[in-house]
Formats: sequence, C-alpha cells, structure tokens
Amino acid sequence: MPATLLFRAEDLRDFMIRYFTALNVPAADAAVTADVLLSADLRGVDSHGIIRLYTYYGSRLRSGKMDPLTPYRLTHETPTTLNFDGGNGLGQVVSYHAMQRCIEKARDMGIAMVSVHNSNHYGIAGYYAMMALPHDMIGISFTNSQPLVAPTYGRTAVLGTNPIAVAVPAGQQRPYVLDMATSIVPIGRVTVYDKAGKSMPPGWGINPRGEVTTTPAEVLQGGALMPLGGVDIMRGYKGYGLSLWVDIFSGVLSGAAFLAHVGHPSSARPNADVGHFFAAMRVDAFRPLDEFKADMDAMLSELKDAPKAAGQERIYIHGEKEFERAERYQNEGVPLLANVAEGLRTSAAEIGVSFPDPIGQAAEEDD
Amino acid sequence: MPATLLFRAEDLRDFMIRYFTALNVPAADAAVTADVLLSADLRGVDSHGIIRLYTYYGSRLRSGKMDPLTPYRLTHETPTTLNFDGGNGLGQVVSYHAMQRCIEKARDMGIAMVSVHNSNHYGIAGYYAMMALPHDMIGISFTNSQPLVAPTYGRTAVLGTNPIAVAVPAGQQRPYVLDMATSIVPIGRVTVYDKAGKSMPPGWGINPRGEVTTTPAEVLQGGALMPLGGVDIMRGYKGYGLSLWVDIFSGVLSGAAFLAHVGHPSSARPNADVGHFFAAMRVDAFRPLDEFKADMDAMLSELKDAPKAAGQERIYIHGEKEFERAERYQNEGVPLLANVAEGLRTSAAEIGVSFPDPIGQAAEEDD
Repeated sequence: MPATLLFRAEDLRDFMIRYFTALNVPAADAAVTADVLLSADLRGVDSHGIIRLYTYYGSRLRSGKMDPLTPYRLTHETPTTLNFDGGNGLGQVVSYHAMQRCIEKARDMGIAMVSVHNSNHYGIAGYYAMMALPHDMIGISFTNSQPLVAPTYGRTAVLGTNPIAVAVPAGQQRPYVLDMATSIVPIGRVTVYDKAGKSMPPGWGINPRGEVTTTPAEVLQGGALMPLGGVDIMRGYKGYGLSLWVDIFSGVLSGAAFLAHVGHPSSARPNADVGHFFAAMRVDAFRPLDEFKADMDAMLSELKDAPKAAGQERIYIHGEKEFERAERYQNEGVPLLANVAEGLRTSAAEIGVSFPDPIGQAAEEDD
Repeated sequence: MPATLLFRAEDLRDFMIRYFTALNVPAADAAVTADVLLSADLRGVDSHGIIRLYTYYGSRLRSGKMDPLTPYRLTHETPTTLNFDGGNGLGQVVSYHAMQRCIEKARDMGIAMVSVHNSNHYGIAGYYAMMALPHDMIGISFTNSQPLVAPTYGRTAVLGTNPIAVAVPAGQQRPYVLDMATSIVPIGRVTVYDKAGKSMPPGWGINPRGEVTTTPAEVLQGGALMPLGGVDIMRGYKGYGLSLWVDIFSGVLSGAAFLAHVGHPSSARPNADVGHFFAAMRVDAFRPLDEFKADMDAMLSELKDAPKAAGQERIYIHGEKEFERAERYQNEGVPLLANVAEGLRTSAAEIGVSFPDPIGQAAEEDD
C-alpha cells in the first residue's frame, strides 16, 4: 500500500494560491479557486481536489486553453435570473461570483436562478450549494461535464457524470448537503479497480458493445459508466434521466455545450464550454425560518434514530460524513498519497513554486 | 391471464366526473381530478390512475377523511413564492391551482416556486410539471408520500417513494418529461410479484431485518422498498438522498408532514398532511426561446441517434414512451383489467353512479 502523507490544510491552500498566481491568475481568483479545491480534499472528495491542480487546471492554463483572468460577463438578466459567459476561465471563479449574485437576488426576490456557459470544470458541486447556508437559504448547484456515461440502451459515453448538489440549513443539526454524481461511481473509482487488478461489481459500467462488464479496462477503453440505478431492471433510466436533467439545466439553458460536446481536459478544442446552474431560495419565502429549522432538526433526528439494518450502527444524513471528515482533516492534516504529493511538487517546481512539507504520515483510507 | 378490457378515454373521464360530483365534489374540481387520473392511465402509469378512484379518493371522501370542497387557501406569498394550505381536500385540485398560480407568477417574474401543505395524494407528479410546457416554461413537481422506503442502513419504511418530475419544452421534438419515483420500484410492482408467486430481482427491497430479499412477501410484511441505486455498493444512498430532498421541499418547506408522519390512506388520522412542491421557469429568462428549443431538438436527436447497446434498437427520451402510449390509448381505448373494471362498477353503483361499457378487449401489457 503506498504511503499517505499528511499536510496542513492551510499549507495546501497557500501553495495552491501561489501556484495559480504564478500562472497569472489574479490573487483574489486564486484564493477562491484554492478554497474550492481544498474544500474537496477536506470533505474527502479527493478526486476533485488538489490532485487536479496540474492535470486539469495547470495544464490548461499553461497551454493557453483556459484564460487565467476568467473574464466572465453577464449576458442576460431578469429580476430573478442571470446568465453568465464564463470567459473560458476558471470554473470556480465565475461560479463563486455567479452564486454570490444568485444569493443577492434571492435576498431581494425570494428565489433566484443563475446559469453559466463557456466555463470549465468548477470543482465540487456542493461548494456552491453550501454558499447559501449562512444566508438561511437553500442552495442548488448542477454542472455538466465531459462524456463518460452511456444512456440506457446506449453503448457510448454521451453524458457526463453531471452532479446534483442541494444544501439545506437546519437548526441544531448539521445541514443536509446532497452532492452526488448521477452516475453510480466516478470514472476514478474504475481506474482504482483497474490499477489494483480487481473486478468491479456488475452494473457500474459497460463494455464497448454496451454489455455490463466487471473488467475495469473494458470501461476505460471504449466502454462507459452506467447512470445511477444501473441496468434496466434496477431502473437505470432514472439515473439517465437525472443526468439529462442536469445537462439541460447546465448546458442547454445556459447556451453552453451539452452531451458529448462538453470538452475533455485533453481535447484540442480551445474551449471546454462547460455549463453550470445555480439556485438560491430564502427559506422564509415559504414559511417562518425558526419553524422550518425546528422541523429540519426533527426530521434529521428521526432519520438518525430510525431502526438500523442488521450489522449497521448508523444512518447517515447527506453531508454528515463529509463535515466530520473536514473537521478531522483540519485538525490532523489532509492526507495525500505520496506519489500525488510528489507529482504536485514536480509540476509546481516547473513554474518556480515550492510545495510544502508534510506534517506526518497516515494510513490510507478506503471509502 | 386475466382479461383486459378497453374503454373510451372520454367515457372514463365522464364517469370519474360523475363519481366525484356524486360525492359532493364541485363540478370544476371533479373535472380537474378526473383529468389528472385519466392522464395517468393514458400514460401507462396505471397504479396512479382510475384504479385508485375508490381505494384512495372515494373511500376517504365517503368516510369524511378528506374534504370534497378542497377549501384550499394561501398562507404565505412573496413576489416569487406561494405557500398553500390544501384544506385536506383533493390533492389534484389544490395542486392544479397552485401550479397555475406558479406559472402566472413565473410569467411576471421569470421564475416562481409554490409549496402546499395539508394536502392528499395528487396523482402523477408529471401532470403538474407538464402544465408549464404550453407556456414555454420548464415545470417541476415534487411530492412526499406515505412511508414505504428505508434509508440506507435502515430497516424500516421511513420515506415515501417521493417522486421527481421535470418537464422541459423542445421544438420539433417531444418535450423531455422526467417523472420518476425515487425508489427503484413502486410498492405495486412488489405486489404484482407477490401475487404471481415470483421472486424479485435482488435489491428492490429489504426484509424486516434490513437484509436484501427476493421474497415479495417479506417486503410487504414489515420490510421496505430500497431507494434508487439499491445496495450500498451500487450507491443506494444517492436515491435515499434524492428522496430526502423531495421530502424536505414538499414536507418541511411547506410545513406539511414529513417522513413517516405522512398519512397512509388507511390511517385513522384525520389528515394525511401530504406536502407538494412546484416550480415554473420561463426559458427566455435565461436565453432566447428559439435558440433553446433548437438546442433541445439537437440534444434529443443526438441521444436517440447514439450507438445502441447489443440487442437494443432504441434509446428513449424520458416521456417518449408515455406520449406514444397516450396517443395509442386515445385512439384504441384505455386498457383496464376486468377485475379492476368490475371493482369500479361495484363501488360506483354504491353511490348510484353507472360505469361505462367497454369498447373491446385487449391483450394484457407487461412493462
């Protein structure tokens, strides 16, 4: 098992800010992007965190495929809606500002929705949904992404893993934070099985003929992931429908690319043209906030107190594991595989940026 | 195989209107409710159609558990939101008017959202989402429902099958209409397997110990349905999360009942206190309508033209099968099992209402 090193969260944040500013990203934008990426690592969504610093963001910034200045601009506005051109910059930067504006509009109008086109990968969907929480609002965040998922009865990757994030404030309880890809697993999970030489559970993916396969390499080489639900008898067309919903709201409603047109990080096309969708809703536009929070607390407590299945000790609320993990990682350090850390050190050195030293070593986690 | 009879759609509609008016439902409300129920039968969601006329609606109206006058009233309003008390009447009536008001508000403001509490079963979620389509709007409809689904790692039915419906207009193509329960299958599907003495696919449901079972009776007697995704390795916690989202928006946001508090049709409690949630969004609040429709057409065509899996001939868009079926049933007649028709005839006769004669007989469909 490869060694896992621990890093101070603030060291990783400072490093990412220095990395982005060295690539001509303005300081404020670098801070936003670093915060979104670090938030993924803290919450345990490491596939969407610092591991992508060079492979997605750095490589595209250095090759000129992405504009470090993120010259986003408003292209449409009504009292309750906005549409932004993301300026082919950092998806995090336009998304952060788009959600801020969404929250401001919702403060005035009760609810608001914002779409973004001509953007790039924005990190974890949940980050933007959670921005609504301190304002006692519900937040929603969707994005489309590069094709990896086959529609039901199809055999090629046409849809992205198109995530859905919804964040809802509670009172004494932690907020409900759903942040889920609409595929069963992310492609990274298949890669992990492939590297380990393991068979996958049947239903995660299909081979190039559209048949369910347990061989990770078949998914990676011309096959596709399956949408949530999996095969027909388990109602995979529902996951396919959710993925399409996200693509319609993120891609079509904003005027961005959709389906297989959404750019790959390695594509030669200049713009990935990723689309995002955000919503913010004042709770008190529906009912008094204190009553809502009391009912949320009651609901989440009742769920946690419900009888457990044989062999299980806890029923989790969405976001709960991630909040607990983030607290632990803030205190004990953020784990990075030694080879990931080494890769980051090497790619940072290329642009004269130093990578921090670890503060310790940890056992690898597997979830 | 039991005989399946065919009935003229208009005959069934007239019958349901006469049935409801005989139970003191005002004529306009009877027409709305009949149209929602007929729409389920036409679309092939027969579990939510006329089959419930007596078992859910008639029985509750006759026993005084539901108010035939549906005295709904507005309890909260902002420029973009409404909250209604459904007056413990017909869920279809308050929902129809709530969605109408939602569409009117969206016409003025760009987007609008409406919640409803103190209601009853509202039929198929998709009906209300589709009401937005003629207005070149996107419609959304959620509802909570009686507990049938266990949360991941739980063993009792705490959540409803809480459906998600989203309807999006296209140009030349038929609209996209997602209308899905957030469980894998509805409880009626388990009952069908039970009556047929068949084993279920593993993953649809759990026994009273919380273990996956293929024995339908174990699900029906103290077990529960599983959320979309099913077992942990297939990411059933995502379906659990979607179900919870629907319950938060329908139950908690509106001030209705939530989780296992949502009334059973057979419950002794006077009010089921079901909650609903609706949204309407003007497409042109985001981008020009003609551009949006052209992109929707392109998207849906590309999906249908994508390479098919081995042995498959079509990739479906959500709602497509249902539109085709509705056209066929309008022309050829709506199929009802002979014993269902007989049950309707008997329960209608009790209140002096006559049931129409069939126009023919059909082979039973199985989907």
